[in-house]
Amino acid sequence: MFESAELGHRIDRDEYRRREPVLRAALLQAQVALSAQKRFPVLIVIGGVDGAGKGETVNLLNEWMDPRHIDTHAFGAPSDEEAERPRMWRFWRVLPPKGRLGILFGAWHTQPVLDRVYRRSDTDRFEQQLQEIQRFERMLADEGVLLLKFWFHLSKKDQKARLKSLEKDPLTRWRVTKEDWNRFEKYDRFRKVSELLVRRTSTAAAPWVLVEGVDECYRSLTVGETLLAAMRERLERTEAAPGAAALPAAASAASAAVSNTAAKRTSARLLPPIDGRDVLSMLRLDQPMTREVYEPSLELLQGRLNRLSRDVKFRRRSAVVVFEGSDAAGKGGAIRRVTAALDARQYHGIPVAAPNEEERAQPYLWRFWRHLPRRGHFAIFDRSWYGRVLVERVEGYCSPADWQRAYGEINEFEAELAANGTIFAKFWLQVSREEQLRRFREREQVAFKNFKITADDWRNRKRWNAYHQSVCDMVERTSTGIAPWTLIEADNKLYARIKVLATLVERIEQAL
Amino acid sequence: MFESAELGHRIDRDEYRRREPVLRAALLQAQVALSAQKRFPVLIVIGGVDGAGKGETVNLLNEWMDPRHIDTHAFGAPSDEEAERPRMWRFWRVLPPKGRLGILFGAWHTQPVLDRVYRRSDTDRFEQQLQEIQRFERMLADEGVLLLKFWFHLSKKDQKARLKSLEKDPLTRWRVTKEDWNRFEKYDRFRKVSELLVRRTSTAAAPWVLVEGVDECYRSLTVGETLLAAMRERLERTEAAPGAAALPAAASAASAAVSNTAAKRTSARLLPPIDGRDVLSMLRLDQPMTREVYEPSLELLQGRLNRLSRDVKFRRRSAVVVFEGSDAAGKGGAIRRVTAALDARQYHGIPVAAPNEEERAQPYLWRFWRHLPRRGHFAIFDRSWYGRVLVERVEGYCSPADWQRAYGEINEFEAELAANGTIFAKFWLQVSREEQLRRFREREQVAFKNFKITADDWRNRKRWNAYHQSVCDMVERTSTGIAPWTLIEADNKLYARIKVLATLVERIEQAL
Repeated sequence: MFESAELGHRIDRDEYRRREPVLRAALLQAQVALSAQKRFPVLIVIGGVDGAGKGETVNLLNEWMDPRHIDTHAFGAPSDEEAERPRMWRFWRVLPPKGRLGILFGAWHTQPVLDRVYRRSDTDRFEQQLQEIQRFERMLADEGVLLLKFWFHLSKKDQKARLKSLEKDPLTRWRVTKEDWNRFEKYDRFRKVSELLVRRTSTAAAPWVLVEGVDECYRSLTVGETLLAAMRERLERTEAAPGAAALPAAASAASAAVSNTAAKRTSARLLPPIDGRDVLSMLRLDQPMTREVYEPSLELLQGRLNRLSRDVKFRRRSAVVVFEGSDAAGKGGAIRRVTAALDARQYHGIPVAAPNEEERAQPYLWRFWRHLPRRGHFAIFDRSWYGRVLVERVEGYCSPADWQRAYGEINEFEAELAANGTIFAKFWLQVSREEQLRRFREREQVAFKNFKITADDWRNRKRWNAYHQSVCDMVERTSTGIAPWTLIEADNKLYARIKVLATLVERIEQAL
Repeated sequence: MFESAELGHRIDRDEYRRREPVLRAALLQAQVALSAQKRFPVLIVIGGVDGAGKGETVNLLNEWMDPRHIDTHAFGAPSDEEAERPRMWRFWRVLPPKGRLGILFGAWHTQPVLDRVYRRSDTDRFEQQLQEIQRFERMLADEGVLLLKFWFHLSKKDQKARLKSLEKDPLTRWRVTKEDWNRFEKYDRFRKVSELLVRRTSTAAAPWVLVEGVDECYRSLTVGETLLAAMRERLERTEAAPGAAALPAAASAASAAVSNTAAKRTSARLLPPIDGRDVLSMLRLDQPMTREVYEPSLELLQGRLNRLSRDVKFRRRSAVVVFEGSDAAGKGGAIRRVTAALDARQYHGIPVAAPNEEERAQPYLWRFWRHLPRRGHFAIFDRSWYGRVLVERVEGYCSPADWQRAYGEINEFEAELAANGTIFAKFWLQVSREEQLRRFREREQVAFKNFKITADDWRNRKRWNAYHQSVCDMVERTSTGIAPWTLIEADNKLYARIKVLATLVERIEQAL
């Protein structure tokens, strides 16, 4: 989940100096339109780890825009007035009205996360609070609030470095408290709890935008550009329905009402990272691996996998292995190296193509539920439910609303299986454009590979950038502690196969 | 919540004989259209108490329609195939495809309810399961499933009578098992747990339809008519969006996608009861109460209320008292009799009119959050958040989607307050049409009452039936264990005031 915010994102100072004045002018302009239209409020929620620049960003937003139309609130210990009322009362008090911006520095998620980190609440209680948050945020979206949630992230190493450097500078020393270091001690736990929060409360209506906090220029521009895009989209949208009171007869009221609700909703689009760095572009795709290393490694790993599959502890578990990847990335070859290690009675390979008629007549997850493994079994998916947020998104086979809600549905689906003992390994195999072209040509020329290349492949290739963005969003939204994505650099097939096997073996070993 | 299913609903046999063939033909016709269009599946979920006619109704539906296009499933102990997979797997297996009807006799709610009744799960766990159910049902609705959920209800007395009579008849004796009687022992607990289920999972997309099970003719027609109305509505609706694949440019894609999602959703409308009996029409509005009884009762109750308000235990609680009612039903007079018993520093009276500019700029619940009482205090609302599902619904001040989601939001809101220690008393004051007219005329004629009557009052009076239906829906959807509605027969003001005070005193006594 946090992979995309640990890439060392940065924007150099010159570029920042060029872009900042433009962004600033545009934000101010959007704010003026917001005040003039008074059609909706903007609520910005700031969360994340200490030392990631949350405070600086809040100050910057107030500097960039007209602070007279911004209400900024931080939340310490509740006042006695607040303590005597339900937990949410203090947040209701400070909701911005239509036409204004509200910035909440910490919000309704803060206390539940800390309670869980310090084990003042148990998992069930925490889950319940997450649900309350979901419901509350959905209500805000339904009521027309433009809700933007930014999660500031630092890797453990970066957080430590950042706290130290703040401490060293006499000017910023005051920013680091003993409390910050105490919390840093709990970094791993905080990360785990936060991941669950971000996963559960990243809904289509109100996703968290992850912001890597290391580089000031990057994080400032990211927050500013995201805010600007969301405000502009909403400001430009004309109200679909007239005032509800003027609705025509009951017959058409239902459809008008729906567009009305729709008109109220905007969610922060996940913009591509402003510095062009993303989880895919950071990969070095041509990893070295010689036959001499490959052969013995393969044998060793297959033997290990076979023993794990016969482990008595595995009888109470099951494994779901998902293969996704660019066309001609070598999924088939990698799958064969996995299945070669398994007893044929113990695994089921499921090739996933376009849904057949029976499957189209059902909810999209139905055809995957059918193939869930029994205890002690493997299910190996050659393409999977992720088609919803990849091909179906890119080709427009489903509506944006459909693929946007799919992230949450898929996370729930996997969590349900994991709770039942399923071990997950999910692989994205990535080849470079050049290597893909080489393989396509080879397939066309070599007779026995000819069947493998179709017009679809060439068409998909044209949508390279759209797929690229979809994969990055998919990893950001669905790589979770229970079912993480592993990105496989696949220009060298030997390397790819070994990395797949090694990862799978490691996942199962950890789980048993 | 179950008030409307304990009214002794019945349809006499002659009427049933007239209506049944018409309904049957129409259902069959709808089923044929469903099969032909193959646009969506229909999923009927049957839940509720034993002996309320669930089995008979399932059989009847199969008799009325073409059973070759219906898949009926009951769920006993899971098979070994099922036990080895996640809990929901058995339900995914039997989802009907587009064009078919599925009837689930017991479904995903059954096990969680029983586990909670027999205390095999705790409240947190149960809450979590309810959330899973909500998410699952929302996904089904988003995927285009027409989901109809019927909850068969019997009062404790009726269930006992019904089980006994089934047992007496040699032909039906087999229907009553020892298990049924064991469960009957737990009636009160089952009712409490079920209420929470019905409340939490009655969403706008998939509300439970409550069916009183005493009278066979009534329950059969109710289920049949509800099913027919929902199927017809969905069949007649033309698909708003063309195939998603044919979507135009990205700019208009968002709005098309929304109507697409909307087109997929139909929810069971809550039809007025087919026998015309509802919670309001069952009231005898002119209750007797003489001045001789009124005066001493009033004094007694006010004294009791005052002592309760000063009870040391009340210092850690608070009370929210809601008054709603027809125009000229005497809310003001009843409120004054309550406040007269309280210390002015301890209560806050909140008259609720149309929202002002500040309030209109916020989510509709905002103006009520502002007025929540501190510990040890009373908040007395003269009209309230229920305006959303009353006047705003009837006058079209908000869209159907908005007031439909409001039931759930209001229930959450009240649950949040109750969890914080708030005691609720909610009163609906009902006068007859004749008595209202008499009071309107009196107001017009008596100088010092003249200010009380406006054009609005006369206009509302014209919408009598629409308000009537809204009140019944409101009581069915928002009368809960923690915050029940009390209906006040208000043709006699003296009686109304005494009933209000007595109820309020009782609510607080029970809570402390």
